[in-house]
Amino acid sequence: MRFIHTADWHLGKLFGQRHMTEDQAYVLEELLALCRDVRPDALVIAGDVYDRAIPPPEAVELFNNILTRLAEQGVKVLFIAGNHDSAVRLHFGAQLLRASGIYPAGTVRADEAPVVLSDEFGPVYFSLIPYGDPPHVRAAFSVEEALSFDTALAVQIAAARAQIPPSARSVAVAHAFVIGGQVSESEHALSVGGSDQVSAENFSAYSYAALGHLHAPQRAGAENVRYSGSLLKYSFDEARQKKGAEFVELGAEGMASHMFYPLTPRHDVRIVSGLMDELMREDFDPLSHDDYICVELLDTDAVLAAHEKLRRIYPNLFTITRPNINVNRLSSTERSYERGKSDLHLFSDFFAEVTSDELTEAERRELVRVIDSLEQGARAE
Amino acid sequence: MRFIHTADWHLGKLFGQRHMTEDQAYVLEELLALCRDVRPDALVIAGDVYDRAIPPPEAVELFNNILTRLAEQGVKVLFIAGNHDSAVRLHFGAQLLRASGIYPAGTVRADEAPVVLSDEFGPVYFSLIPYGDPPHVRAAFSVEEALSFDTALAVQIAAARAQIPPSARSVAVAHAFVIGGQVSESEHALSVGGSDQVSAENFSAYSYAALGHLHAPQRAGAENVRYSGSLLKYSFDEARQKKGAEFVELGAEGMASHMFYPLTPRHDVRIVSGLMDELMREDFDPLSHDDYICVELLDTDAVLAAHEKLRRIYPNLFTITRPNINVNRLSSTERSYERGKSDLHLFSDFFAEVTSDELTEAERRELVRVIDSLEQGARAE
Repeated sequence: MRFIHTADWHLGKLFGQRHMTEDQAYVLEELLALCRDVRPDALVIAGDVYDRAIPPPEAVELFNNILTRLAEQGVKVLFIAGNHDSAVRLHFGAQLLRASGIYPAGTVRADEAPVVLSDEFGPVYFSLIPYGDPPHVRAAFSVEEALSFDTALAVQIAAARAQIPPSARSVAVAHAFVIGGQVSESEHALSVGGSDQVSAENFSAYSYAALGHLHAPQRAGAENVRYSGSLLKYSFDEARQKKGAEFVELGAEGMASHMFYPLTPRHDVRIVSGLMDELMREDFDPLSHDDYICVELLDTDAVLAAHEKLRRIYPNLFTITRPNINVNRLSSTERSYERGKSDLHLFSDFFAEVTSDELTEAERRELVRVIDSLEQGARAE
Repeated sequence: MRFIHTADWHLGKLFGQRHMTEDQAYVLEELLALCRDVRPDALVIAGDVYDRAIPPPEAVELFNNILTRLAEQGVKVLFIAGNHDSAVRLHFGAQLLRASGIYPAGTVRADEAPVVLSDEFGPVYFSLIPYGDPPHVRAAFSVEEALSFDTALAVQIAAARAQIPPSARSVAVAHAFVIGGQVSESEHALSVGGSDQVSAENFSAYSYAALGHLHAPQRAGAENVRYSGSLLKYSFDEARQKKGAEFVELGAEGMASHMFYPLTPRHDVRIVSGLMDELMREDFDPLSHDDYICVELLDTDAVLAAHEKLRRIYPNLFTITRPNINVNRLSSTERSYERGKSDLHLFSDFFAEVTSDELTEAERRELVRVIDSLEQGARAE
């Protein structure tokens, strides 16, 4: 049994005010090509198919297109709702699509039957465990007592395991935050204050656990309990992460191997560091200037019209950070002090930024006069 | 070939601030029962499956449930988008669901192939013609010249006919306003000013045209070009319409018969006429007081606390009309005159409605004094 584990597609996502649909379509073509190459039995999407409960029509169209073509390739597709998906909307066609080898699981249900796929060693039971917060799980399973995220997941898994013969091979597909995992900015916490974390032990009976939610590919407690990571980089703190999909092989006894296949996006998401003078040299950054860029501007002084200038080099400049502008690191008291000392300097910069011109010597003298009189006025009060 | 023609389900509709989902679920159970009885080969929904582009989750869940059970019964389901549906969202799974006998057609496409179902006399070609306004049709078919609703439909039908052998039996499924049709309030015009109408001639090559959009069941130009009408009454001007579904039989040569099967809703939508005194008698209206009611209150004078009183008889009272309150029929000049003469009368009614008490004789005298002084003041100005 060979399957691809992917997660957190976030179709329809906006990143830096940009619709990611075209980038998502591009990288999904690569995923389709990967499927043609490695010919998996199935592809598993561990939640957050869409970025929001009501995705834009283009995202619905894209997902429909990808599912249709995977089915044409003979790849079965198993997917669950994540915390970003609408459980009910993602559940549409859950029974009907099975005839085409598509297995959605949107809503949390106490009687969700495993999807059984077979290979030469016999059946493999896939438990589709859609994301549910504790109140939903309580309602769906008619549990009386209060549940945490961890005990809610345990309830879902206990019900799923009850439908799997003890010695059978099995795969869990779930969307959860396993304790100790590496977090990214674009995930959105499942709850406030860390109570959203679950133990990796929940998955110990499975041959493999295909997890979604955390955007960095990583193991979660055990080699066979893994996050594939998100389809694309959806925040700059993911810039150094690899993005791709896990290719998992089950043998007679359980997981035989897994391998991470990187996918190359249309636009990489990168942080470029440098002084303004360096950055403005076309050959400073050898990679594609068309990427989605955060510039880490290392200059210590104000830089005039930085956005405008850098956008000429990087048409997809998303943001600029200024790690060496000390004012950002000072306390607010220190900041006022700093500000007081450099009014002339700051105004000169501001003037230049707005007018693209420097203050003349006469203007500079006049400015000094105005600042002095304002300061005297402030002291007099 | 036997199929049921239905249309305008408007799942997720609000009527009088009420979600119709439960009523829709109830009547769809009847439709399922009808399918069990008459065992059609297919069920056709001629657009406006949902009431809006983004239906509430309950509506999506209901539609999924009905489709799943029809497929289990072995009934094929063919449906198109109407002007209320989101074309793209309704199109989800269009290819994938075919394996389960479900044939959605949401988006307008130049290459939409007919659905071919067969019986002992050979194939029947179903042209699924989703609703598209002229700009959408122009774009989808790459038409240069401007289109009206009529010529846009003609373009769609010409493309559909090109895929059907000339002598074959065929069924069109479309959502349009055929000239001369009987309109209801709850339909929403396709365009302003009547340019949204199309000729019945468009459908003349088909053995049967299953139309949606107009909410009253009716023929449209020919016996075999029909509106099934909406699933339920969705406005009080539909109160006297029958609601149900057409059961159509095709023989070797085309339409052999059609028969309208009424469906009984959980709550009827009715207008009840009477004087307040009559209406307040429990035995005045022999039908279910639980229906969705518009009371036509025939009294000529103001009636005190009419809503409150009538709601005791009709818990689902939606609205009250007052056909005999003359003031509504007068011109605004006449209305001012009428108003001037009856200030005392109108205020007395208002006082009684608000306080549930009559003016005392002292209060009445004081009121006359106030009105007189106001009128003298007005005249002095």
